[in-house]
Amino acid sequence: MKLYDGGRAPNPRRLRIFLAEKGIEVPLVPIDMGAMEHKSARITALNPLQRLPILELDDGTILTESVAISRYFEEMHPEPPLFGVGALGKAMVEMWNRRVELYLMAAITAAFRHTHPAMIEWEVPQVPAWGEANRPKALQYMKIMDDQLGRNEFIAGSRFSIADITLLVATDFLKPAKLQIPEELEHLRRWHVAVSGRPSAKA
Amino acid sequence: MKLYDGGRAPNPRRLRIFLAEKGIEVPLVPIDMGAMEHKSARITALNPLQRLPILELDDGTILTESVAISRYFEEMHPEPPLFGVGALGKAMVEMWNRRVELYLMAAITAAFRHTHPAMIEWEVPQVPAWGEANRPKALQYMKIMDDQLGRNEFIAGSRFSIADITLLVATDFLKPAKLQIPEELEHLRRWHVAVSGRPSAKA
Repeated sequence: MKLYDGGRAPNPRRLRIFLAEKGIEVPLVPIDMGAMEHKSARITALNPLQRLPILELDDGTILTESVAISRYFEEMHPEPPLFGVGALGKAMVEMWNRRVELYLMAAITAAFRHTHPAMIEWEVPQVPAWGEANRPKALQYMKIMDDQLGRNEFIAGSRFSIADITLLVATDFLKPAKLQIPEELEHLRRWHVAVSGRPSAKA
Repeated sequence: MKLYDGGRAPNPRRLRIFLAEKGIEVPLVPIDMGAMEHKSARITALNPLQRLPILELDDGTILTESVAISRYFEEMHPEPPLFGVGALGKAMVEMWNRRVELYLMAAITAAFRHTHPAMIEWEVPQVPAWGEANRPKALQYMKIMDDQLGRNEFIAGSRFSIADITLLVATDFLKPAKLQIPEELEHLRRWHVAVSGRPSAKA
């Protein structure tokens, strides 16, 4: 088994944090996304979508998408459960992971990729108006996260889950997008300090 | 239990098809998205993201996000399994569901919402350049789906899954986006005819 890893990019980091929380070590194959190596023929042959991370099993089976790879490891190594416990608990984790990823993380990513000069080769075509349209959306979604964290220790309830990993990666990605957690969102700030202090956050 | 339903919109339809495949009946509360009722105070109180579908359990617990609600029903009623079987099977369904949703369906939705005059109140602000940028992406992703369907009966392998439901809803949404499945993508066309013929497709 080996994991083609993309370094500092958000999705490879999501999976590394997940593995660190599980205590699972997988040999990494570093891929230099700064040098556009994820668009190389070698990576394209593994994932036609040219995205990382990519897990290659010993029999050559390829799995892509950080959440799908995480679910594979959750099934193989259920403890600690990071996708929730019980029918409702699993659905709640899925709901919050999607709310974070599809709204907040997508808005931050669009703001970054469509306005940052370094992303011109990555996002073809860059549409600066779309990037700018996403800045107020990111703020609106952070408010929803803050409300939830005012009632719960973690984003999907009382237990740390993959949705917290997605939220950590998303909020850490505010900086390159030239955004920040507003001062008044005190619950989101409290949560960010707490989750950033977990050993897995360094992964 | 009751399900706030959004009629013809893609995400409410995904869940209705899922329930039809499971043979589960849930009382529906119709919400008129054409009249922007999903932005009403009543719906906002249930889902601050103002999106449908919304499941309300008998104890008042609220679940949103069609895939999260589907997972709740999968856990409560495992047969037939629509999220895959076994660790690798579940991961493969998750991978393909995400590939369809995050790339193909997202591209089709952006093409529709950012260019169609009827969507001006829905997508604020509309960014027509972003809509146009997504048309070639939709074609590129359809080619990847076609390649997979040239090797497999269904999109995640030999078994019908939630990823097929997402792909059906996405490809049926090509029409309002003024796109279509290209003639040469014969595997995707074969699959579309077959899946459209299932009784659940009428849901």
